[in-house]
Amino acid sequence: MAVYTEVSDEALDAFLDDYDIGELVAFRGIAEGVENSNFSLRTTRGDYILTLYEKRVDPAELPWFLGLMEHLATHGLTCPLPVHGRDGQALRQLCGRHAAITTFLPGVWPRHVRLAHCGPVGEALARLHLAGAGYAPTRRNALGPQGWSPLLERSLPGADEVQPGLGTELRQALDGILAQWPQNLPVGHIHADLFPDNVFFLDQRLSGLIDFYFAATDILAYDLAVCLNAWCFEPDLSFNVTKARAMGHAYAAVRELSAAERAALPVLCQGAAIRFALTRLYDWINTPPGALVTRKDPVEYIRRLRFHLAARDEHAYGL
Amino acid sequence: MAVYTEVSDEALDAFLDDYDIGELVAFRGIAEGVENSNFSLRTTRGDYILTLYEKRVDPAELPWFLGLMEHLATHGLTCPLPVHGRDGQALRQLCGRHAAITTFLPGVWPRHVRLAHCGPVGEALARLHLAGAGYAPTRRNALGPQGWSPLLERSLPGADEVQPGLGTELRQALDGILAQWPQNLPVGHIHADLFPDNVFFLDQRLSGLIDFYFAATDILAYDLAVCLNAWCFEPDLSFNVTKARAMGHAYAAVRELSAAERAALPVLCQGAAIRFALTRLYDWINTPPGALVTRKDPVEYIRRLRFHLAARDEHAYGL
Repeated sequence: MAVYTEVSDEALDAFLDDYDIGELVAFRGIAEGVENSNFSLRTTRGDYILTLYEKRVDPAELPWFLGLMEHLATHGLTCPLPVHGRDGQALRQLCGRHAAITTFLPGVWPRHVRLAHCGPVGEALARLHLAGAGYAPTRRNALGPQGWSPLLERSLPGADEVQPGLGTELRQALDGILAQWPQNLPVGHIHADLFPDNVFFLDQRLSGLIDFYFAATDILAYDLAVCLNAWCFEPDLSFNVTKARAMGHAYAAVRELSAAERAALPVLCQGAAIRFALTRLYDWINTPPGALVTRKDPVEYIRRLRFHLAARDEHAYGL
Repeated sequence: MAVYTEVSDEALDAFLDDYDIGELVAFRGIAEGVENSNFSLRTTRGDYILTLYEKRVDPAELPWFLGLMEHLATHGLTCPLPVHGRDGQALRQLCGRHAAITTFLPGVWPRHVRLAHCGPVGEALARLHLAGAGYAPTRRNALGPQGWSPLLERSLPGADEVQPGLGTELRQALDGILAQWPQNLPVGHIHADLFPDNVFFLDQRLSGLIDFYFAATDILAYDLAVCLNAWCFEPDLSFNVTKARAMGHAYAAVRELSAAERAALPVLCQGAAIRFALTRLYDWINTPPGALVTRKDPVEYIRRLRFHLAARDEHAYGL
């Protein structure tokens, strides 16, 4: 749930004057997303999303994110298109925050993941990877493998309070993952956070992808590993290989997966699981009890990690 | 910020099958309102609000609220109109909660109250009072004068932790207010919670009133007293009599205020201030620190109360 910054009507009116998108009709905070403040904005011209970037986003990186979204949206992917102001700028200032308006995407994100969702997600992810190829600027993945050891170090003092033995388990797993991390797989722009709440469906069809603020330039197959973690475990944390097969096959039908990429799936999935386990653990330990942010349980991702550590090869993922 | 209940896509689809309002296009949680879960719902037919009633609302009272809204909306007031299902029912069940769909109102609530807002609010309040006259069922105001002493008793043990001497101050003030409380003023249906976030404006004009879930049958002029408290104090808690005059005159131009109603304004304003001071105090003391609800500072209303206790007569309010 996220509206961290209150936007006054005067400030909003002045802000909209810098755009050629018609007159204000409605403006409501959206109770979704955890990093930024999002508002549903309607004008006489149509529907938009206004995002105010809060402090966890580095302002220096915003042009890269907005540029990627614009590139993807104009290269066949359905994702929010940044709207330029009268001066040509998409990134502006509002209420002391960096802010941008993007187009509104219809659709509903799936609260319960069904098998029928997983193929379309794999296909859309592959299309994103292909469409991103023409976007020249790169962004280092701050939450990629180089970031995991520092994250673990900062969480170790509190880890065993979350679960006894957790610190040792994570340290051992991370050492193994980093030792085996693949070095020569194809790299490109990845979403890096394509969870169900970032994928809209309409009439059983995927209608758009949102929230590119973790996107980065990294191993493409790692993005598939993130999705296998996010979409293919059941609520009881059992792994649904049928969902994984549907996702992987749909991905590979659009962008072929090499033998090396397939073989690396277990360690890539381990990496994706430990990445979310570590950020959740860090937030769990460092979120004050009174904060307005719901903390997510890191243990869910530690259980996923254990599954992937036991996976022998790509067959564990139906590939 | 309020989405307490997660609605699955399957449950939503099944729920919408009971309505003749077209096919689902978009569905987002709204980060506004503190009592219920609200969602912005778009279908191929138009825009709606879906509300899930959470536990603070007594289900037995929901038909009264929805009936009042329907009566007001069909008698010239711009407020959400409950949408009936195919079976004629507006009140239904979704995800174990009572739920209703209402029409969407365009507009933006004013984050900064300006003088230009106050006349339209007074006028709309008077129109609400006149339009409500034909709605026969009544609802006792649970947060009216009879409710204030029990609320104070339950808050007294923690009151002095909020501010030393607060318990005694509130007890003395409440005794005085109840002793002077007017008995023979005109009664009708009141909104009882017409704060800025419940009033939408569009192009400088009032475009609608929302959130009738504190509405009740009580002294009409008390509703004006609530609005004087909610709209006419500046952020530094100084009282802006120009705003009050604009509001009161606009009200009286639509529904005449009798001499008795005008004379009672100081005590009615004291009552309105202590009502919000007491509920905020109660919530302040009883909200666990980890709760996802922002606690509102009761002291703001105690300072308003002190202003009203010093008011000699209606001239203090520009009337």
